[in-house]
Amino acid sequence: MKKLKNNQGNQTEVSKRKLICYIHDQKLREGDALPSQTVLRKLFGVGAFTIQRAISALEKDGILETIPHRAVRVKSLKTNGYDARLIGLVCLRRSYIPSSTILLQCLLNQLADQNCQCKLFLRNSNQMTDVDSLAHFDGLQRCIERGLIHGILTTVSFDDKSWRIIRDHHIPVVSMDTASHNKGCKVSFASILPQAYGIVKSRHLRRPALIHCGYPFVNAIRSEFKAYFPKQDEQYCRFLFPDMIEADEALPMANAAQKVLDDFCGMPEDLRPDVLIIPDDFIINYVYTELLKRRLASPSFHWQPHFIYIIQKQNLFFTPSEPIGDCFEFDIIQYAERAVQALHEKMTGSFNAENENITVIPHLVNAP
Amino acid sequence: MKKLKNNQGNQTEVSKRKLICYIHDQKLREGDALPSQTVLRKLFGVGAFTIQRAISALEKDGILETIPHRAVRVKSLKTNGYDARLIGLVCLRRSYIPSSTILLQCLLNQLADQNCQCKLFLRNSNQMTDVDSLAHFDGLQRCIERGLIHGILTTVSFDDKSWRIIRDHHIPVVSMDTASHNKGCKVSFASILPQAYGIVKSRHLRRPALIHCGYPFVNAIRSEFKAYFPKQDEQYCRFLFPDMIEADEALPMANAAQKVLDDFCGMPEDLRPDVLIIPDDFIINYVYTELLKRRLASPSFHWQPHFIYIIQKQNLFFTPSEPIGDCFEFDIIQYAERAVQALHEKMTGSFNAENENITVIPHLVNAP
Repeated sequence: MKKLKNNQGNQTEVSKRKLICYIHDQKLREGDALPSQTVLRKLFGVGAFTIQRAISALEKDGILETIPHRAVRVKSLKTNGYDARLIGLVCLRRSYIPSSTILLQCLLNQLADQNCQCKLFLRNSNQMTDVDSLAHFDGLQRCIERGLIHGILTTVSFDDKSWRIIRDHHIPVVSMDTASHNKGCKVSFASILPQAYGIVKSRHLRRPALIHCGYPFVNAIRSEFKAYFPKQDEQYCRFLFPDMIEADEALPMANAAQKVLDDFCGMPEDLRPDVLIIPDDFIINYVYTELLKRRLASPSFHWQPHFIYIIQKQNLFFTPSEPIGDCFEFDIIQYAERAVQALHEKMTGSFNAENENITVIPHLVNAP
Repeated sequence: MKKLKNNQGNQTEVSKRKLICYIHDQKLREGDALPSQTVLRKLFGVGAFTIQRAISALEKDGILETIPHRAVRVKSLKTNGYDARLIGLVCLRRSYIPSSTILLQCLLNQLADQNCQCKLFLRNSNQMTDVDSLAHFDGLQRCIERGLIHGILTTVSFDDKSWRIIRDHHIPVVSMDTASHNKGCKVSFASILPQAYGIVKSRHLRRPALIHCGYPFVNAIRSEFKAYFPKQDEQYCRFLFPDMIEADEALPMANAAQKVLDDFCGMPEDLRPDVLIIPDDFIINYVYTELLKRRLASPSFHWQPHFIYIIQKQNLFFTPSEPIGDCFEFDIIQYAERAVQALHEKMTGSFNAENENITVIPHLVNAP
């Protein structure tokens, strides 16, 4: 093995990575020329030998080619396993929430397409708080301080001290919508509720009820419901899990939904909701099937409310064969795309500050 | 910055990684002493200065501490973001199959607990084949040949040429059960069908029918069904998607299941199945709800078969409120644990060759 002088081995590795970044960020195509080595040296802040060594390594790997006495150009956009950047994915251990795991898969797919490798930082504590310290994620602070990660995608909110460290080291962060306490760039799904409430009115439905999963949005949603439907009693606005869930385990959805249905079914017919708004695919699936069962069990029970509900395009287990109301669709791939795109723009300095709040709009599948 | 001689910078990095591996693999605890530096030098094949530099770096990071004139010992098992190993996860782009995405999440969680970082190798081609070449995954071959990855978890099967390269470079591989053509260590879920067929007989059910998702197990399952129930016609053994699915998109489950139900519902009552065996949570959810609906729509339609079905412990969207038959449960976390454990044993040389076929047994939730 040829010996390298000083710490040039490491500098060559960094320069290789920066060349891969350059090709990707400048959207170069196969055959396009790189800038001169002088320009690259200034751009990367390294010496002539380091750049030459990095270029010749990428030539061996089939990514670059040198036209003798002329430019170095891109031979293949397949980066042969080189990573342009390392991204920290900061999240909870959530094995029992399919939408979380689908989001993780979609983020990983998108990042792989952008030549980014991911390092997963899982919460090391079961004690839940609204905001997290960097210390809740082993090694996250060290990786930030040493510049080992080039960007962060987070599904948790950080406390003020953590934000100071992140900012001091200029690490771009994009927060996903469960990280509701974070400032800065945030990608969220738009709530379907205002649109759902509009549908209730335009369809002249009179006794709307909401069945919602719960935490952390309980108070805001209750006020919003009250503002739209001031005559509806609080018992029409229901939350299955109003408090934070700590453990990584399945929610007892069936028990919680059963109780709400018992209440509604026990009401006199003229007070029962004529529309159930259910912005959750697990809950709508359970409620719909359970109401079919109750109608079958008792011929005198006829309750058949209109449903306004949501499904996930990537987890289509609820697909009734006839229309049962108004259906919205979440596209998790689109959501992941927007988040990864925002992070990439932040890392390359091409981010437009007006895009700090990126909202992905669920799509109404059947027009009212 | 202090300059390092030759390529010792890189060697120090490798030695730091090996020290992290050593602590993890030897199951050292906080306060336990490391072997002498002479032993470590021989173990890692490096010089005295390299070992000293690696130890003092890990001291700075709070992982090791030196008791003056005595041993170096483990100060903290929190590895502060250092990775012991880099694992290649080789898989298809499957955003629409929640069980795949949950498996990925569980594997990532498990690997993070083992101080392993993952590099995702996604299939770069849409043309589907039973076995894949390394070239279908950008950079996989280079990472294997240069020893950049220390182990592989794969959900795809490799062709012979790929296996030769993997073996030549001594990379341990664990195949998950969709990689059905691979040899070597394989982790699979046991089929519930033999047990389900046993339940059919012990419950004296007489007209069993199977509704199965399909590819790649069609022929084997059809023969097995015939062997258990030689008098049952082929129309009782149904596959929704007998052929390979190429694209990363949602399966038209509802349409396919609807057709099968139309056939069964159209049969004379004395020929209709008295038990539906459905080893898939999406299909059981659809079929169960659809039959409720058909019974509600037509008071003379009474078909209420016994169900033998499966659900996933990590994706509990189908939770009927009363017993509808015999229910098996898949635990994806347990499956991921077994796979990661097997890979770890292979990487550390502690793998027992008798464990080449590791079968995770689904659990019968309600006893027959």
